[in-house]
Amino acid sequence: MKGESDFIDALRRRVDTGTRGRGDAESTASPRLPVTVSSSLVIGIGDDAAVFRSTAGKETVITADLLVEDIDFRRTTTSPYLLGHKSLAVSLSDIAAMGARPLWSIMSIGVPEDVWQTDFVERLYDGVLDLANRYSVQLIGGDTSRTTENIVIDSIVAGEATAGMSVLRSGASVGDQIFVTGSLGAAAAGLRLIERGAHLAEQNLADEDSQKLDHILLRQLRPEPRVGWGIVLGEERLATSMIDLSDGLSSDLNRVCSASGVGALIDSSLLPIDERVIELCGRRALDPLQLALHGGEDFELLFTVKPANATRLPRRVDGVGIKCIGTIQSASEGVKISEGPRAWELKPGGWKHF
Amino acid sequence: MKGESDFIDALRRRVDTGTRGRGDAESTASPRLPVTVSSSLVIGIGDDAAVFRSTAGKETVITADLLVEDIDFRRTTTSPYLLGHKSLAVSLSDIAAMGARPLWSIMSIGVPEDVWQTDFVERLYDGVLDLANRYSVQLIGGDTSRTTENIVIDSIVAGEATAGMSVLRSGASVGDQIFVTGSLGAAAAGLRLIERGAHLAEQNLADEDSQKLDHILLRQLRPEPRVGWGIVLGEERLATSMIDLSDGLSSDLNRVCSASGVGALIDSSLLPIDERVIELCGRRALDPLQLALHGGEDFELLFTVKPANATRLPRRVDGVGIKCIGTIQSASEGVKISEGPRAWELKPGGWKHF
Repeated sequence: MKGESDFIDALRRRVDTGTRGRGDAESTASPRLPVTVSSSLVIGIGDDAAVFRSTAGKETVITADLLVEDIDFRRTTTSPYLLGHKSLAVSLSDIAAMGARPLWSIMSIGVPEDVWQTDFVERLYDGVLDLANRYSVQLIGGDTSRTTENIVIDSIVAGEATAGMSVLRSGASVGDQIFVTGSLGAAAAGLRLIERGAHLAEQNLADEDSQKLDHILLRQLRPEPRVGWGIVLGEERLATSMIDLSDGLSSDLNRVCSASGVGALIDSSLLPIDERVIELCGRRALDPLQLALHGGEDFELLFTVKPANATRLPRRVDGVGIKCIGTIQSASEGVKISEGPRAWELKPGGWKHF
Repeated sequence: MKGESDFIDALRRRVDTGTRGRGDAESTASPRLPVTVSSSLVIGIGDDAAVFRSTAGKETVITADLLVEDIDFRRTTTSPYLLGHKSLAVSLSDIAAMGARPLWSIMSIGVPEDVWQTDFVERLYDGVLDLANRYSVQLIGGDTSRTTENIVIDSIVAGEATAGMSVLRSGASVGDQIFVTGSLGAAAAGLRLIERGAHLAEQNLADEDSQKLDHILLRQLRPEPRVGWGIVLGEERLATSMIDLSDGLSSDLNRVCSASGVGALIDSSLLPIDERVIELCGRRALDPLQLALHGGEDFELLFTVKPANATRLPRRVDGVGIKCIGTIQSASEGVKISEGPRAWELKPGGWKHF
C-alpha cells in the first residue's frame, strides 16, 4: 500500500527537478516578461512546513493542513467554535515546530448547503479568530465553497524565522538530548472517550472527575499549539531538530531520526504522561503508555538539544514545562525505548492518513 | 438566502476589528515573546486576492480557491492532469487580476481511498507542475489527506507586486475605458456541451468541427490564466481596476462597479464572443451572447484604463489580444449594456456558489 510519506518524497523530487529546470520556462516565456525569482526555495515539501528565503535576513515558513469531516473530525462530537480553533491550532503547531513566529493565516472552508444556512461558519471563524488574535496572527484570506456532503477545511499558516534558523527535522546529532513539551496521551485518550460517547460537561464542574474528563476531552477538541516554545527554541538557537507530535511520539521520533540519519533511545519512565490520563484510563481499559507513545494529536513539541545548551532552556514558557525523555544515538543503534534494564525497538505506531 | 459575498463582507469587518484589537493579544502574551508585526495587512479579504506589505517596496498578494468534486468539477468529465492544471490556473488568474507576478503555490488535495490507490494524484500534480513551470511558480507545499467520498483541492497562490501597485477592483473612475482580454463564452459553452455528453477528441483532429469542439471544451477544462497580461498591466500602471472573469462578465463587471462606486455602459456589439462558440452554438440552441455575459469561467481579465493610457496598451501579450467593450459611467447611470440604440440594465447573472 502506498503511504503519504512515499508520495511526498516523490513529489519533493519532482518539485526539485522543476526548480532546477527553470531554464525551460524562461525560454518559452514572453520576452516582455523576464523571469525574475525573488524568493528561493530552501527546503520545499516534507518538513513540518516549507521554508523559503523571503526578505534579506528572513525566511518564511508555510504549512497547510487539510481537515475533512468524518476523517479528521465529526460534526456531532465537536462544536463549530472548537473546530475553528483546532483547524488553526494544528497549523500553528507546525509553524512552532519550525522554530518560527506565526504571522498570517488563510482558512478555506467548504460546507454543504444545509450547514451554510446555519451560523456554523461564523462560529467556526469565532474559534479561528480568537486563537489567531492571541498570537497576533492575521487572517488574510481564504475561500468559502459549497460541498455536496462533508465539511472540509484547509488551514494555511505562514511564519517567519531569522534566515538559516528554521529548526528542521534533520538537525539532530548523536549525543543530543531529546525533550518534549507539556504532557502526552490526553488527546488520544480524549478521542477514544469521545468515540465511546463522552462529551464536555463545561457547565457543572464542581465534580472533580468531570473536570478531569473535560481536561482530557479538550486536549483532543481544543489542542493548544506550543507557539511560545517554538519561538524561543528557534530564536535562541536552542533546538537542533524539532517536530510537533501530531501523529504520535513513536511515528514522529522516527521521522526526526530518519531525517537526521540517527537513532534514539528514550526511557519510558521519563515520558510525561498526563496524570489525568493515568488516573482515568485505569478504570477504562486504556493503556496510558500506548496512548502517550502512539496516540497522536497531543501537538506537543519534540526537540533535540546539545547537552551544553540544556541548562539554557527556560523551565516554562507560557506556563508549559518540558521533560528530557532520552538521547540521540547513532543510526546503527536504531530507535528504541527502554523499560528498566530492557529496551525494545520503537516502531511508528501512530496515525496514518493512508 | 445568505450569499457568499455578504459573508465575506462580514468576515472582513471582523478581521479588521481583530487587527485593531492587537493590544489585547500583547497583554496576554508571555513577556519573553514581544509581539512584533513584520507584515501589515493592506487590503484583506474581499478583492481577487489579499494584499499585504511584505518587503520594503513590495507587496504580497495571496489567493485561495477551494475546488470540490461534483460542485466545481466531475471526475468523469475531466482528467486528473486537466484538473491539476485548472486548479492552479484559477488561482493564477486571481493573481493576474491583481496585476501581480505569481511566485509560489500551495496545493492541498483530499481524495478517497480508492482514488489514492491509483495514479490520480500523481497525474493531477503533473498538470499542476507543468503549468507552474511555465510561469516559474514554485510548488512549495500542501497537504494530502483522505476523504470519505469526494475529491477536494485547495489551491493557494502568492504573487508579488511593487508596493501600492496591486490593481484592485475599486480603482475605476468615470470615463475609464473597459477592456477584456481574449474571447468570451467558450468556457460556459464547453460546460454545457460536456453536460450533454461531449468529450475531447484530441487524437483525430483532421475534422475541422472536432477541432472547434475541442477548443471549446478545453476552454472549460484547461483554462489559460492571463498571467502575462496581469504582470504588464500591473507593472506598467496601465489598469485602474481589474478582475478576472470567473463568475461571468455581468457579475464581475457589477463587482468592479460596486467596489469603485461607479456605473458602466458596455456595447454588446463590441463583446469579443468566441467565434467557434457563435458557429457551434447556433446548431445547438445555445445563445452565444448569454454565454458571454453570464457564463463564467472564461478566466479572461476585465480591466479599466484611463483614455490617455489606452494607446500605451500592448496589442498582444503571450499571443492574446484585448478589446475595448465600453466605458465607466457615474454610479447614477447604473451598469448597462447597449444593443444598437437601446440599453438595458446588466444584472449579475453568473454563477453563485451559494
